Amino acid sequence: MPILVMKFGGTSVADLDRIANVAAKVQREVERGYNVIVIVSAMAGKTNELVGWVNKTSDFFDAREYDAVVSSGENITAGLLALRLQDMGVSARSWQGWQVPINTTSAHSAARFVSIPRANIDAKFAEGFKVAVVAGFQGLSPEGRITTLGRGGSDTTAVAFAAAFGAERCDTYTDVDGVYTTDPRVTSKARKLDKISYEEMLELSSLGAKVLQTRSVELAMRYKVRLRVLSSFEDTDETSGTLVCAEEEIMESKVVSGIAFSRDEAKITLVTVEDRPGIAAAIFGPLAEAGVNVDMIVQNISEKAHDEAHPGAVTDMTFSCPVDQIGKARKAMEQAKASGSIDYTDLVVDTEVSKVSVVGIGMRSHAGVAAKMFKSLANEGVNIKVIATSEIKISVLIDRKYVELAVQTLHDAFDLGTAGEAV
Amino acid sequence: MPILVMKFGGTSVADLDRIANVAAKVQREVERGYNVIVIVSAMAGKTNELVGWVNKTSDFFDAREYDAVVSSGENITAGLLALRLQDMGVSARSWQGWQVPINTTSAHSAARFVSIPRANIDAKFAEGFKVAVVAGFQGLSPEGRITTLGRGGSDTTAVAFAAAFGAERCDTYTDVDGVYTTDPRVTSKARKLDKISYEEMLELSSLGAKVLQTRSVELAMRYKVRLRVLSSFEDTDETSGTLVCAEEEIMESKVVSGIAFSRDEAKITLVTVEDRPGIAAAIFGPLAEAGVNVDMIVQNISEKAHDEAHPGAVTDMTFSCPVDQIGKARKAMEQAKASGSIDYTDLVVDTEVSKVSVVGIGMRSHAGVAAKMFKSLANEGVNIKVIATSEIKISVLIDRKYVELAVQTLHDAFDLGTAGEAV
Repeated sequence: MPILVMKFGGTSVADLDRIANVAAKVQREVERGYNVIVIVSAMAGKTNELVGWVNKTSDFFDAREYDAVVSSGENITAGLLALRLQDMGVSARSWQGWQVPINTTSAHSAARFVSIPRANIDAKFAEGFKVAVVAGFQGLSPEGRITTLGRGGSDTTAVAFAAAFGAERCDTYTDVDGVYTTDPRVTSKARKLDKISYEEMLELSSLGAKVLQTRSVELAMRYKVRLRVLSSFEDTDETSGTLVCAEEEIMESKVVSGIAFSRDEAKITLVTVEDRPGIAAAIFGPLAEAGVNVDMIVQNISEKAHDEAHPGAVTDMTFSCPVDQIGKARKAMEQAKASGSIDYTDLVVDTEVSKVSVVGIGMRSHAGVAAKMFKSLANEGVNIKVIATSEIKISVLIDRKYVELAVQTLHDAFDLGTAGEAV
Repeated sequence: MPILVMKFGGTSVADLDRIANVAAKVQREVERGYNVIVIVSAMAGKTNELVGWVNKTSDFFDAREYDAVVSSGENITAGLLALRLQDMGVSARSWQGWQVPINTTSAHSAARFVSIPRANIDAKFAEGFKVAVVAGFQGLSPEGRITTLGRGGSDTTAVAFAAAFGAERCDTYTDVDGVYTTDPRVTSKARKLDKISYEEMLELSSLGAKVLQTRSVELAMRYKVRLRVLSSFEDTDETSGTLVCAEEEIMESKVVSGIAFSRDEAKITLVTVEDRPGIAAAIFGPLAEAGVNVDMIVQNISEKAHDEAHPGAVTDMTFSCPVDQIGKARKAMEQAKASGSIDYTDLVVDTEVSKVSVVGIGMRSHAGVAAKMFKSLANEGVNIKVIATSEIKISVLIDRKYVELAVQTLHDAFDLGTAGEAV
């Protein structure tokens, strides 16, 4: 019997009515002929309550005990959903991580999957059970302790189960009805995509589209798990939502699939840095140690390189990071300067910038996307401060006040509001 | 290193402050040189919340899923207490039932212990851990599912661990400071006992003194576990509370140790029942099937046995049960009569009775306790409706309005308000 994995997040199981709604969706898939593995999160707010208790109980906290406490929320949801399904006549059984077992590393609160043996759940399916309700976000360490997977762990659990069980698809139910060409709150022309490639989804999710966790998309891409995003609050059928799949499965696609943006970015420029081998490591090493998530990096020949007052080989180094990390970043640079490992004449901070990116697998074979992007923005008077590109993405930093205008302009320029072929 | 088992109920761990208070009590025992096994309940109200969710989710409910959900409360407390202890510098680790493992039968929601292997916890003690915090009330079935033990399961868990680990003592912290000669709300002369025998405690707890669950006292008696009841809300030392122990350990004792009572009893009399072999089974079989907890049973020769209108051998049969089961009891009897399996001329119900009992191991060797009890009650004009006796207990049913008077009278008559030898 084909296996389907379904995943429901915290808002989808927030109360008993919603759990009943989830049960109905599961029952429908059983009626379609699937054996279903359902991955559930804790009821919305539950995990935060448990985390709050842990924080109030202990100052330093042992991640093993943190995990033992925090994983309880998913266990409760799993049991309740199994009960609800049974009540509807669907034979279901709940599974905590140690019962499957979901074997992980010992890295508590950030564990990684080692293996998910099929035997126990397969035996229950063979007995005639139709549904395995699995508590997401958790696993079992080699020492026999409960682990948790960190943020987005339930998404990742779902993809890992789909891979382990050769599932036909992994349906991720969320509070949105799919992946859009851009955020519908920014332009009403935003359009839901029927399909999107793993690579594009990966760029979109790491660029700030919060539909799927980056790690779960990576895992889906590696194991070729077909991943569908759809709404848990609407009636859905087999064509609903957005399918994240291999490029080959997408017959028709535009050069650009979507416009992503990240509003709260900051830009730091180190002016007149010595241009020598190892200078990048001397700058970005201390930033990494300070926990700064450096995103875009640009190295320019400084104008001062031609300045008589600075005869040596010098350069300007610019990088971006989330705006709330700017304090840490500045401190790390000032300490590095004080220690003599780097030198600069000035440190210029701009906290009023946003990042806008166009993403599309078609860029690989189509030239002219960058030119079109820059021209469209220029026509609207939007100045580009930093540019970074990858194979399927072009990102620019711009003044924050222009972010909506830029997204709307690019959405129009690449004709994302309509389905069908276009550049 | 000697092992001490400590058990804390739901009100003792009701919030984070109380968990901190528990941690301080555990730390003190560690400082005294013990390796400590702490058995914890769910935070007060937590289990009821979970049970409520289960009842709202499913009409029939699968006890396996019920147990999976309901056991979460204890897991949370165990993790939080371990964290708190670590924060105080006490090396502690939490244990869920499956991690120990606490092997039980598969009787979900009413499981019984099969074995508690010491190896895993002993290995942690050998590593230098001082405290094992064990989630009470739960275990692991042979099928690898979570079980729960039913009401009072955490008390029973504590005694079972004390037996399995050869603990020096099992200290049960509650919201009272020990076992009293009777309920202090009924007479201010009630006195806390320093020691009480298993047998007496068993009678007292099954008679309505709610300090310890009957099953945990039974288990303590069978495995000779020294069981101490003390308050979790007071400063306590090694002499606090009441020690429940073997008779041999109690040097000095009175003939009567305590007066127990159960207020809400009911009495049913079946008048003119045929007196033949098998009649008791024909009456009490249907009552057991209907879930009626029959307590006292008295069979009298009916006056009507001498009545010319009823020439056969007949009798009156009287029994007592909790007053809220009277409807079920009456229905079971009427159905049995309708089916022809029993016959009676009248069914007389008295819902205004209470049971008062004197309990004492000294009764075995001292005559005259019954006579003294009946005389004291008669002096106060209290009429006795039914009498039942065991080796160390005499119980009477009386009109409910006399219950406080009867308890006070008997407490005085047997001189329970003072320590020391007396009859």
